[in-house]
Amino acid sequence: MRTVVVHAPLDLRVETLAPAPGPDAGQVKVALAAGGICGSDLHYYQHGGFGTIRLKEPMILGHEVAGTVVEVGADVTRVKVGDHVAVNPSHPCGHCRYCIEGHSNQCLDVRFYGSAMRFPHVQGAFRDEIVITQEQAFPVKADVPLAEAAFAEPFSVALHAATRAGSVLGKKVLVTGCGPIGCLTIMAARQGGASEIVVTDVSAPALATATKVGADIALNVAEKAEALASYRPHKGYFDMTFECSGNPRALLGALDVTRPLGAIVLVGLGGEATLPMNSVVTKELKVCGAFRTGVEFGWAVDLISNRRVDMRPLLTASYPVEQAVEAFQFAADKSRSMKVQINFAGAE
Amino acid sequence: MRTVVVHAPLDLRVETLAPAPGPDAGQVKVALAAGGICGSDLHYYQHGGFGTIRLKEPMILGHEVAGTVVEVGADVTRVKVGDHVAVNPSHPCGHCRYCIEGHSNQCLDVRFYGSAMRFPHVQGAFRDEIVITQEQAFPVKADVPLAEAAFAEPFSVALHAATRAGSVLGKKVLVTGCGPIGCLTIMAARQGGASEIVVTDVSAPALATATKVGADIALNVAEKAEALASYRPHKGYFDMTFECSGNPRALLGALDVTRPLGAIVLVGLGGEATLPMNSVVTKELKVCGAFRTGVEFGWAVDLISNRRVDMRPLLTASYPVEQAVEAFQFAADKSRSMKVQINFAGAE
Amino acid sequence: MRTVVVHAPLDLRVETLAPAPGPDAGQVKVALAAGGICGSDLHYYQHGGFGTIRLKEPMILGHEVAGTVVEVGADVTRVKVGDHVAVNPSHPCGHCRYCIEGHSNQCLDVRFYGSAMRFPHVQGAFRDEIVITQEQAFPVKADVPLAEAAFAEPFSVALHAATRAGSVLGKKVLVTGCGPIGCLTIMAARQGGASEIVVTDVSAPALATATKVGADIALNVAEKAEALASYRPHKGYFDMTFECSGNPRALLGALDVTRPLGAIVLVGLGGEATLPMNSVVTKELKVCGAFRTGVEFGWAVDLISNRRVDMRPLLTASYPVEQAVEAFQFAADKSRSMKVQINFAGAE
Amino acid sequence: MRTVVVHAPLDLRVETLAPAPGPDAGQVKVALAAGGICGSDLHYYQHGGFGTIRLKEPMILGHEVAGTVVEVGADVTRVKVGDHVAVNPSHPCGHCRYCIEGHSNQCLDVRFYGSAMRFPHVQGAFRDEIVITQEQAFPVKADVPLAEAAFAEPFSVALHAATRAGSVLGKKVLVTGCGPIGCLTIMAARQGGASEIVVTDVSAPALATATKVGADIALNVAEKAEALASYRPHKGYFDMTFECSGNPRALLGALDVTRPLGAIVLVGLGGEATLPMNSVVTKELKVCGAFRTGVEFGWAVDLISNRRVDMRPLLTASYPVEQAVEAFQFAADKSRSMKVQINFAGAE
Repeated sequence: MRTVVVHAPLDLRVETLAPAPGPDAGQVKVALAAGGICGSDLHYYQHGGFGTIRLKEPMILGHEVAGTVVEVGADVTRVKVGDHVAVNPSHPCGHCRYCIEGHSNQCLDVRFYGSAMRFPHVQGAFRDEIVITQEQAFPVKADVPLAEAAFAEPFSVALHAATRAGSVLGKKVLVTGCGPIGCLTIMAARQGGASEIVVTDVSAPALATATKVGADIALNVAEKAEALASYRPHKGYFDMTFECSGNPRALLGALDVTRPLGAIVLVGLGGEATLPMNSVVTKELKVCGAFRTGVEFGWAVDLISNRRVDMRPLLTASYPVEQAVEAFQFAADKSRSMKVQINFAGAE
Repeated sequence: MRTVVVHAPLDLRVETLAPAPGPDAGQVKVALAAGGICGSDLHYYQHGGFGTIRLKEPMILGHEVAGTVVEVGADVTRVKVGDHVAVNPSHPCGHCRYCIEGHSNQCLDVRFYGSAMRFPHVQGAFRDEIVITQEQAFPVKADVPLAEAAFAEPFSVALHAATRAGSVLGKKVLVTGCGPIGCLTIMAARQGGASEIVVTDVSAPALATATKVGADIALNVAEKAEALASYRPHKGYFDMTFECSGNPRALLGALDVTRPLGAIVLVGLGGEATLPMNSVVTKELKVCGAFRTGVEFGWAVDLISNRRVDMRPLLTASYPVEQAVEAFQFAADKSRSMKVQINFAGAE
Repeated sequence: MRTVVVHAPLDLRVETLAPAPGPDAGQVKVALAAGGICGSDLHYYQHGGFGTIRLKEPMILGHEVAGTVVEVGADVTRVKVGDHVAVNPSHPCGHCRYCIEGHSNQCLDVRFYGSAMRFPHVQGAFRDEIVITQEQAFPVKADVPLAEAAFAEPFSVALHAATRAGSVLGKKVLVTGCGPIGCLTIMAARQGGASEIVVTDVSAPALATATKVGADIALNVAEKAEALASYRPHKGYFDMTFECSGNPRALLGALDVTRPLGAIVLVGLGGEATLPMNSVVTKELKVCGAFRTGVEFGWAVDLISNRRVDMRPLLTASYPVEQAVEAFQFAADKSRSMKVQINFAGAE
Repeated sequence: MRTVVVHAPLDLRVETLAPAPGPDAGQVKVALAAGGICGSDLHYYQHGGFGTIRLKEPMILGHEVAGTVVEVGADVTRVKVGDHVAVNPSHPCGHCRYCIEGHSNQCLDVRFYGSAMRFPHVQGAFRDEIVITQEQAFPVKADVPLAEAAFAEPFSVALHAATRAGSVLGKKVLVTGCGPIGCLTIMAARQGGASEIVVTDVSAPALATATKVGADIALNVAEKAEALASYRPHKGYFDMTFECSGNPRALLGALDVTRPLGAIVLVGLGGEATLPMNSVVTKELKVCGAFRTGVEFGWAVDLISNRRVDMRPLLTASYPVEQAVEAFQFAADKSRSMKVQINFAGAE
């Protein structure tokens, strides 16, 4: 079984490991077809981690994957051999207060594929085969390309963000930052019935993709810093802003153009921002975070499986697993790539 | 008619003006009994304004007032002569998008007593008599001291804050800052059924008052900077934090002790705070502002009128209107005063 | 000016009246192009009213209309001569508790076109010209057929219904009843991102239209009473049910197939239903009503104006105003008609 | 170990059984002190069950219990020997969709003490000793009588009901039915800051108790059927109604006096009610169910443990376990009893 293992910053290797045992009762074995490279995968590859989370041992990367069920253990009722599935990379503990309250994305003891937050690290899903619990397997229709099904996880993150500030239906929406999560958030807002979606970025290709996936107006704030100025009168225009750039200036600008009682949902991880407390108080803004996903994983799979969304404009390139290093190098070049995937043995 | 007029920073005068004409149809004349000095009154007195809002002409101060109806115009059904009333100091326009959507506290064209936001300024309510619309008059029971009724406005601000993050019932609550709004927020949280209320301040007398009005645990963060450290494990302890100090460090500290998916309600006006975006994102915190009040004005009056709350611990001192300057000087000394009131001709 | 006036049950006349004076300041005159016949119009025509609401004098019918601005009064900034507009038929009082709280659809003193709820009745909008306030005029893009713009009002009712139970995004939805409001609710749920929409009706043509406008599965409960049986296991399948038939049996059936903690939104007016209290209690269902519309009028106009929805499958027939009686007769034949419109002088 | 076992309708026996083995790891043994008789206990005693749920084998009754920890298994950190605890009688499965979504009270496979819903039945907690998981043990302060702690479960049901329609703070509340759950709901609404609480019942003693625990106005609808008539004008007075009688007429009456957009929470189990669909639609009422409890169990324990509520007015009588039959007979006489408890070996 080939795997994509990070050993240290810029030391990424394709290694052959023994396949995992199993499946045991309640488990299924999936031959992976496609895996998308996420921002966190890139951080491990480029920097060996982020913040206080650091690689302490080699770790298989990857958590945005889909494939075909090749073997099922006893008592498996949810899927059968041959089914195409998107794989939910998250194993919440089921026992902590957040799990009990229905917020498993805040689990105090979660196991998440390809994460160095725990030690030993939780090995990831960039591999030819993986054994998962049946609850992690979400079937997609046979005619849906598995490359699209592999978008289920990041799209579910965007859908989760879209729910954080109440219903999007009829709302005027600003999305700052048009990388993969920004574009998926645009798609989520469009699905949710936003009446108007304005987006900003500093990259012309990113803005072009954003327009393809549903933005009504795409503004290049590198070319025109004051691009949002016309949305400031009457205390602001947008009902909801989704901050997907991680850039503190984007948050600061959003405070001026989001209307009183509106929401600014922080999706992108970022550093320290300056927050003028008076703006938040007098406009009664709601600045809230969105992290990972929950029941929205199933929503994402349904929307992809029923072809209500089209992920193809986001897929810049696919590489066979042997070329994983080239895939990561290309993915790291944000000026050229949106989402880059790796193909595995189970590819259609 | 005696009035309390600010002419310039530290230039406060008790002046006799001609009484207002009226009441016209739908209006009532109120002989004021008591008026509380608010932080914004103090800002006009000490600094001539705040932020971009500056005195441009002499202005009567005051907006936390109660008195007795002495005359009613035609078509008045809501109150009668002799009724004790708390006066709602806000006149929303009724036509802007925020009024139409039920958020008159965000009115784009509000008239608010004793505010220099508009020009000519809206004259305030520190005067022997005032003519108001009947909708502004909220009756209180005859046996409720008007000094307590004059707390209706600031208490309603606290009640409004208490609604901003959903129901308080059963929640663990932190209040940072125990000035008048902080203490009233403690009372609002207690009314709303908080299961535990922890408070912080740097002033021992303020903390003592906070304990009198409902705080379970009062922590002096001047004496012990790490007083909240024990609330950090497991990603935080409090379901809701109400930031009433306007101090950016209080907000920063709240991010560590507010649990994932919890809320931090900003009530106190403050300057620029540093906001670590990652904390908000990964804990999915909700940082939201609370400003002025709405339907909660009626709630405040009902709770005071039915004696479900006791405002007396908050009233540090009362001065006759002739001694308004002394009243403001005392109110400005935060180490000694909580709420200071001025008495008028209509005093019981 | 030609008008469509109901005098008594089955006594509908096209009458020429003097045009309305005006427009005064803040008002605009609209030459109407298209007007849809609503269920309430039909009730006045067929029965002279409904429930306790009865015709007491001749009344112009109609409230689902769109046209072209032909004259503007002083101080009008919202629209200009030549603009195409959808007309909001509702004038809330602006002063009652519901208006103040942002729920003008519950106004205690509303004036609504073509309604006999007040006396003198509020005359309706089936006429060549009408003078409205500028706030009632909602511009649509010039290339949007006014026949589609005339769907703004009923579509906004459906959008309002879609907001009554929280966000529709990702939800499994049942719509019972596929008349005009049922079909518009299907479109609203689709806009809001429902992951699956199942619908029921007893009419094959209605079900066929429902499928055209977004239903995934259309079930004929006249042919198969137990058509929904497969959705009952595990305490129910649907997150939200929209009851648009007014049929008590549909509500009863919905209790079995709506999942615990799910919502049943009653949109269709109906008679007395039997409600097994234990079902509501043990499944913690939420049965809630939706009535008329509010801010959703603007949403409907935006969605129609931006062509995000296509109203054409719902428009069964259009008649010139001279043939208004034929139009009503055809509209009354539910087996053949979905939405029937009348064309006026301003027709494109 | 003495237990209270129902064998058939009216066949209740105090039987001595061998004590349960254990505690195993993670479990604790509790010597029970007090157990309240619930309506469902009475149904088993009087009728052998309710609805489709029927006794098929002898079953120990009881689920409202508190006692003292007498032994702890390995790995127990939550309580220690000697602690006073309220016992949560519910074991949700932790795996079904409702558990995962945080709604364990809707668990598809719950085990609940003293319930014949499953077969073999889940034996109840009216016994001298019980072995529970540590998660079921909720410590109360040593100075809180265990008889009051035994109210945790029914009070948590009332608190859960109080959360079903949003925040109670400042709201005008109607409670129909003043049995134990009605009275506890009054206490929950009072805790939550209701500004006014009006209650109805047909029993003078029940109304007297209701007044003791927080009702502002108590109306006897047996003496005056139209007692609520004055609350009908302007489409209704109450923001929230809690229907705790299970009487369909109470629900029908509530529709008239609950204001538009208000909520009617059904707490009491009842039969078939007549629901005029038009009332629900045009007033946009929200009729929703409340069933059992969730995180509110901890809230109830905290409020009781901190003496913020006083359960004593609700406790009509206590019987030693040997007189369990007399206790049930007295509890069945609703004209004389509110809550009746049984005392066990662990009684203080």
